[in-house]
Parts: sequence; C-alpha cells; structure tokens
Amino acid sequence: MTVFVLRLGHRKKRDKRVTTHVCLAARALGAGGVILSGEKDESVMESVKRTVKKWGGNFSLEYDGNWRAVIKDAKRKGFAIVHLTMYGEGLLDAIPQLKAKRKLLVVVGAGKVPGELYSIADFNVSVTNQPHSEVAALAVFLHALFDGRELNKRFPGALVRIVPQKKGKVVLRLRKRAEEN
Amino acid sequence: MTVFVLRLGHRKKRDKRVTTHVCLAARALGAGGVILSGEKDESVMESVKRTVKKWGGNFSLEYDGNWRAVIKDAKRKGFAIVHLTMYGEGLLDAIPQLKAKRKLLVVVGAGKVPGELYSIADFNVSVTNQPHSEVAALAVFLHALFDGRELNKRFPGALVRIVPQKKGKVVLRLRKRAEEN
Repeated sequence: MTVFVLRLGHRKKRDKRVTTHVCLAARALGAGGVILSGEKDESVMESVKRTVKKWGGNFSLEYDGNWRAVIKDAKRKGFAIVHLTMYGEGLLDAIPQLKAKRKLLVVVGAGKVPGELYSIADFNVSVTNQPHSEVAALAVFLHALFDGRELNKRFPGALVRIVPQKKGKVVLRLRKRAEEN
Repeated sequence: MTVFVLRLGHRKKRDKRVTTHVCLAARALGAGGVILSGEKDESVMESVKRTVKKWGGNFSLEYDGNWRAVIKDAKRKGFAIVHLTMYGEGLLDAIPQLKAKRKLLVVVGAGKVPGELYSIADFNVSVTNQPHSEVAALAVFLHALFDGRELNKRFPGALVRIVPQKKGKVVLRLRKRAEEN
C-alpha cells in the first residue's frame, strides 16, 4: 500500500511547527511522502529534509501551490482521496474499505478547508468527531491503516539508529554503512 | 482506566500550537486531563478550556511549574508513569503491561527532556524510534491503549455535536440540553 499526504493551506506564521509535525509523523508512521500546499515555506522543507537525510528511508517532500491539480493528478494515477475531517464518517467504519486500496492520498488541512474538498474526496473520514489535531488524526489513521506494522518500519541509509531501551538512550552511529549504500 | 497527561517544558514562543494540539488530542482520545508545565501560558489554557466548554466532557486542565512534584504526587496516588520517548521500548511490547494498570500518567516533552526523567518513569515507551511529534506519539499511544474504544467516547454537556457524514457537515446545536444539565 502506498500512502502520500497532502497538507493544505500552510501558513508560514502560524503553522510552521504543526506542519513539520505532520511531515515527520507521516514519515515515521509509514507514508511515502508529503506534498505541502498553501504558503511556500523553505524552512519547514529544509528541516524535514535534514531529518530524512539523518534518519534514512525513502520519503519525498514537495511543494505544490495548486492542491486541486495535485488531487486531480493523484486520481488519474489511481489514488483514492481520503480527507481527514472531524465531520466525516468514523475511522473504524471506513478503514476496511481503505485497506483494500493500493494507493491513498490523505488530505489534512490547516485551519478551515475549502468546502469543495468534501465532495472532491472519495472518503471523508473522522478520527473522533471532536476538534483536536491534524497531527493526531493522521497518526491514528496511519496506525489503524497499517495495523501497527508501521511501528517496525525500516529506514535504509540512516546515519543513526536507536536501539530501544527500557531506561536510557542507545544510539548507533552508522556513517560507514550509510556511505556504502 | 484513568489516564492523565503531563506536558513538560512548554515554551510560550515556540510551543503554543503544539501544546494546544497535545491538550486537544488528549481530550478527544480519552485522557481525563492535562497538567501543563514549563512556561505558564494563559492563552493556551483559555483556548483549550473554551473547547471543553463547547464540546463537553469532563476534562481537567491545570498548570504546575514543578513537574517533579507532579510525578511524585501521581506515584503516591498509584499512577504508573509512562514517558513517551523515541529512545524507549516499543509500544507494542509495553502495551500489554500498561493495559493492566488502573491509572497512568503519560509524560510528553517539548524539546529535550531532563535526563533524570528516564529513571523516574516506570516505563519509557517509544512510538517508533524515529523523530516525529509528541502529538502523534500521544495519539497513537492512547489509541493503542484504549483499542479504538476512545473513538466513540461520549462528551456529556456539550453545546454542539457532530453527526458523522460521508459528505458534508452536520452539526447539532444542543444548547437547551446543555442548560438542563
């Protein structure tokens, strides 16, 4: 299953850190990449790209100011469009159908999203019908979609890797391996 | 199961929105309340309290600048302390033991947390060993802990309630009911 994330309506002043969290959570929890829309923000893109370089894996990050074109193009390529919204049908109702898809584009907004998105999307899915966080909604969505397998995802080419510990921190430096790859 | 969240090291300039997301995700996904530490930030507290008032449920929000005392007090009251950290043991390894507890205090940092936390905590738990987002980590943690039951949590006393829809938005105004309660 291939999952990409489209982040709508980024505002440089307000959303810098939340958009960064959207990107990093998408990467850590198994998405293949994020397309950023709204205001172009080099600092967010550089910060996420630095993380990808250090921590490995194949993760694409692009900016495209025309989100309608991004969705149209994704549909043409066979992606089902999943809009995460507190108004949508329940996650647990939607997830069996979504698991049967091969390609998903998950759309998360910053602030209010354009009303037309509700009809353009193939699925409007809610992670609770309460106001909370697009980062939290995306994270729970990916975890439910991948059934926890995303927690053991490998990130090839990493310069560092953590060895999980009950107490303390163990970080392996893998520079050599990264250079060989 | 009672779950509270302790948000460490809030910085007013940097963390306003991420801390708000931590609080709202905690509430939406079944936690009973959040204790904020770090810099005191009335605007975050007011914003979260407005949401609680409108959307209902029992959710406490407090500030306490002395996080060590918060943890000590929680331990005394029988809470197990769970520190979410990318260095910790894997979520799926830890969760069976955590489900057996009656009271959890989940600690999430902003930026780097004090090293002593790793030994003060009863559990150091990682939601992936990748750098991402305390909002995402908390959300996946609560979802795994509550097995998805949190998605159908009721929020008594709400002024509004969303009726989930495949397309569009349906919001019920419940003012009368709220006044009667």
